[in-house]
Amino acid sequence: MTHIPIFVIAAAMVVGAGGATTFSAAGADDESSPIFGIKIPPGYRDWRLISVAHEEGMLNDLRAILGNDVAIAAYRERKLPFPDGAIIARLAWSYDPLEESSKAFGHPQSFVAGLPKNGVQFMVKDSKKYASTGGWGFAQFDDGKPAGEAVQNACFACHQVAKSRDFVFTRYAP
Amino acid sequence: MTHIPIFVIAAAMVVGAGGATTFSAAGADDESSPIFGIKIPPGYRDWRLISVAHEEGMLNDLRAILGNDVAIAAYRERKLPFPDGAIIARLAWSYDPLEESSKAFGHPQSFVAGLPKNGVQFMVKDSKKYASTGGWGFAQFDDGKPAGEAVQNACFACHQVAKSRDFVFTRYAP
Repeated sequence: MTHIPIFVIAAAMVVGAGGATTFSAAGADDESSPIFGIKIPPGYRDWRLISVAHEEGMLNDLRAILGNDVAIAAYRERKLPFPDGAIIARLAWSYDPLEESSKAFGHPQSFVAGLPKNGVQFMVKDSKKYASTGGWGFAQFDDGKPAGEAVQNACFACHQVAKSRDFVFTRYAP
Repeated sequence: MTHIPIFVIAAAMVVGAGGATTFSAAGADDESSPIFGIKIPPGYRDWRLISVAHEEGMLNDLRAILGNDVAIAAYRERKLPFPDGAIIARLAWSYDPLEESSKAFGHPQSFVAGLPKNGVQFMVKDSKKYASTGGWGFAQFDDGKPAGEAVQNACFACHQVAKSRDFVFTRYAP
């Protein structure tokens, strides 16, 4: 019988049980976004957490920012600019008062994520392919479908404000 | 030469590069909490996202709820009660206006996670060990150290409101 080191078998079991490559909560949408030609990365809902945020006003959502392994490693090693292959995902949901909490406190106290809202956005680092936009490609998908050109074009203009952090707004939440 | 299937080698590389078992952003704190005897689970900062929330009032934080593989699988399969081995983690950070955003909008618009706040909390499912509290052990750690008995004792009383969801407030964010 061939002997395989225990740690290799254990590692394979870990990945088989819950690895990002084998379990995707997102659909298998396969349509590329305009301008930057980005597809929804498979398994992104399984990526690790970078940080969380709340947007007021028109957006009025709760959001989570997740990163693939390259992005998470860069954040933790405080590596700027982000290396090629880094992908940052922004998910968002409606901003809903939690019913049980409102009842207990007599007023809204806890706000939780409801249904998906404001699409899902990605920043994809490829310093050659996206050289004219700081090395980042930007994409937004609404209900799994890429948004139109006007939406995709708006991303970089706004992200230039964060140029000193390689155009990324989100800081890692320790 | 011994041949090891490619998928096993690939799996080992994936885990080596970013696996939850090999990279822990949390400290190696090893002190058990009072009452329930819970230690900080290694690598919990790498767990997958269940949902996000904002607490107003005294708490005034942004929070993320993460789950280990058992908890995430139970959520996605809508399995209630949660099986033994499920662990849910609640992280929280200060609720800070994002400076760049406030400047651009002329008023606070984006609120982001700042420094850790209000401790880290865990719910650990063990239907035998914690039979008297719905099968859940509860623990809070402040700066890596278990909080006192009064804090730990307060958890279950409040979570009884969510008895129909196996005492868990947080719903999975799709």
